[in-house]
Amino acid sequence: MKVLIRGRRRHFRTVEFDARRNEVLLIEQRLLPHQFKVVRIPDFQATARAIRDMVVRGAGAIGATAAFGLAQGVLAFKGADLASFLRRADKVYETLKSARPTAVDPVNAMKQVLAAMEQGSSVVEKQELALLAAEQFAEEDVAHCRAIGGHGAKLIQDGARILTHCNAGWLAFVDVGSATAPIYAAQEQGRKFHVFCDETRPRSQGATLTAWELAQQGVSHQIIADNAAGHLMQRGEIDLVIVGSDRTLGRTGEVANKIGTYTKAVLAKRHKIPFYVAIPLSTIDWNLKNGFDIPIEERDEEEVLGAWGVNGRRRREYVRVANPGSGARNPGFDVTPAELITGIITPVGIFKPRELWRRRKELVFPG
Amino acid sequence: MKVLIRGRRRHFRTVEFDARRNEVLLIEQRLLPHQFKVVRIPDFQATARAIRDMVVRGAGAIGATAAFGLAQGVLAFKGADLASFLRRADKVYETLKSARPTAVDPVNAMKQVLAAMEQGSSVVEKQELALLAAEQFAEEDVAHCRAIGGHGAKLIQDGARILTHCNAGWLAFVDVGSATAPIYAAQEQGRKFHVFCDETRPRSQGATLTAWELAQQGVSHQIIADNAAGHLMQRGEIDLVIVGSDRTLGRTGEVANKIGTYTKAVLAKRHKIPFYVAIPLSTIDWNLKNGFDIPIEERDEEEVLGAWGVNGRRRREYVRVANPGSGARNPGFDVTPAELITGIITPVGIFKPRELWRRRKELVFPG
Repeated sequence: MKVLIRGRRRHFRTVEFDARRNEVLLIEQRLLPHQFKVVRIPDFQATARAIRDMVVRGAGAIGATAAFGLAQGVLAFKGADLASFLRRADKVYETLKSARPTAVDPVNAMKQVLAAMEQGSSVVEKQELALLAAEQFAEEDVAHCRAIGGHGAKLIQDGARILTHCNAGWLAFVDVGSATAPIYAAQEQGRKFHVFCDETRPRSQGATLTAWELAQQGVSHQIIADNAAGHLMQRGEIDLVIVGSDRTLGRTGEVANKIGTYTKAVLAKRHKIPFYVAIPLSTIDWNLKNGFDIPIEERDEEEVLGAWGVNGRRRREYVRVANPGSGARNPGFDVTPAELITGIITPVGIFKPRELWRRRKELVFPG
Repeated sequence: MKVLIRGRRRHFRTVEFDARRNEVLLIEQRLLPHQFKVVRIPDFQATARAIRDMVVRGAGAIGATAAFGLAQGVLAFKGADLASFLRRADKVYETLKSARPTAVDPVNAMKQVLAAMEQGSSVVEKQELALLAAEQFAEEDVAHCRAIGGHGAKLIQDGARILTHCNAGWLAFVDVGSATAPIYAAQEQGRKFHVFCDETRPRSQGATLTAWELAQQGVSHQIIADNAAGHLMQRGEIDLVIVGSDRTLGRTGEVANKIGTYTKAVLAKRHKIPFYVAIPLSTIDWNLKNGFDIPIEERDEEEVLGAWGVNGRRRREYVRVANPGSGARNPGFDVTPAELITGIITPVGIFKPRELWRRRKELVFPG
């Protein structure tokens, strides 16, 4: 997507690879929205640290970063000894995998790279195949997001007022995003609309990342407190809700996503406002039988008790907002049942949540 | 209520009057929760400024402050000339009234003081009656809150987990509070329970004022992001919701309160969790016929775009959280319909919201 730099829009992806210099290029997301900077990562160890330290976040984005990191690691190998090369590849894989141990995307992405490498017989061949496979993973991530956009854009009518929650935007993928894909596609098709970004406390990804993205792309938008969406719906000021998902249960149509998503779905149902979830196929879980079995991570209470921002001297700073003697509960995710979801927007079409299982052959992730 | 000072709990009211020194004493609420300080206000002009500048806030608290401010102003009058005295009283009244022009509580409170003064015939008599009437207003505010607590405490069972939103606590009244009154009464009766305080973005009164109050009183509590209540209800972790109200329509049972209240009511209804609104009688509006006619103030967007807190050097500071190029919508209040409200807790008993009009004779504010 495009980024405004000194009044001009330049094209960037969240994750790129410079094959000539064997460097991974990442948008340094921890500086957003207050500073835009692309960092060049010189070796696979540093790429693993970038994943661990949240320079890059989001399912598709960390998948592609791990794929490129694996290619980067094996491309740095000097010599022709196959046994040493394979030991190196294994070490690179393990290093990148352990950077975010609970995430499935880096592992899925790297498995595609490893499978491609098996087709080569020499070190050089395997190196070339690793690079090609990583590049292909990234291109497919973009293609899947564009396909989500193609299907979802039809839902956005001229003049629509759309609510989003958290950030399932292009910063969470290689490009385009999932929940934002229909928005960007409708914009390309020339439609005019307005987006309300839920602030998304406690980490405020809506106010920071989604609002930043939309501002860069020139999409009309406003940030609202998470408390305000119900009132806007009640007053008829929201026509459509689109969110992303960390995990969607293929058997039940339940959707796990950032805390607060469930509340928005309950409100949308009451006001008969369509509520859509946009997902890449890789996030469908075909095994779990009950949304209540999805583990809900309890995050650091400091997130709830304060906020990160920039102060008057333009320095990034954490301020403690809450009463110093009080603690917090901080569940990171919630689960929205199928009955509250109008449709699931995927790269291969829009599905009713309870249709997923019956139509699973159309939906199996190729990776 | 009590405030913890160096490990000991001392009793304070939000608003007090020192008749000997003719000073109004206020808890400086802008410093809470990070610093507790009582300020002495030397004259009625300064008392008006304290109301205007939000040293004191909350319906009952600003009512009592205005009543004491009026007494303070007329007590400072020297001499026995009745005409000059009445001109002074009028000037004091207008000064205090203009400090918060949209609020009804200061006006209602001061009218009680003025009515009492009419019973006296000399300056000295009128001065004494003004002081008595202001003290009586404050005592009645406390008595009404205690009565709310007496009725509401029955709703809190041992082991209950209660959700509150915003601050309708003792800091918003002279003492005890409205939404917190049942909590403090149940605590006095020896019951054990736990309170979840909604953070209440954008101004975070739940995380700051309510959490501070509960900590001072030793009530078990945790702060949650406004996004988290739906998840906790879904998991069966909330048994009861109690909120306050800025305005309750006597004809329809609709309740205007801090933005986000409506959302919590919708969630409570879905989960069959009792949802109560605790109010003093002065906040019932017997005229308006439709909640949609309640004006919803659109507040400064900076509230949504950032947060106030204390930084690492213990200084109070505003940090900008949101994308610098983005704006915000910031409705300050929302309206909850009667069908979502289990009961309205008043000083004279608990009512179904749609009973208010039929039983209005029991509910008319004596003031």
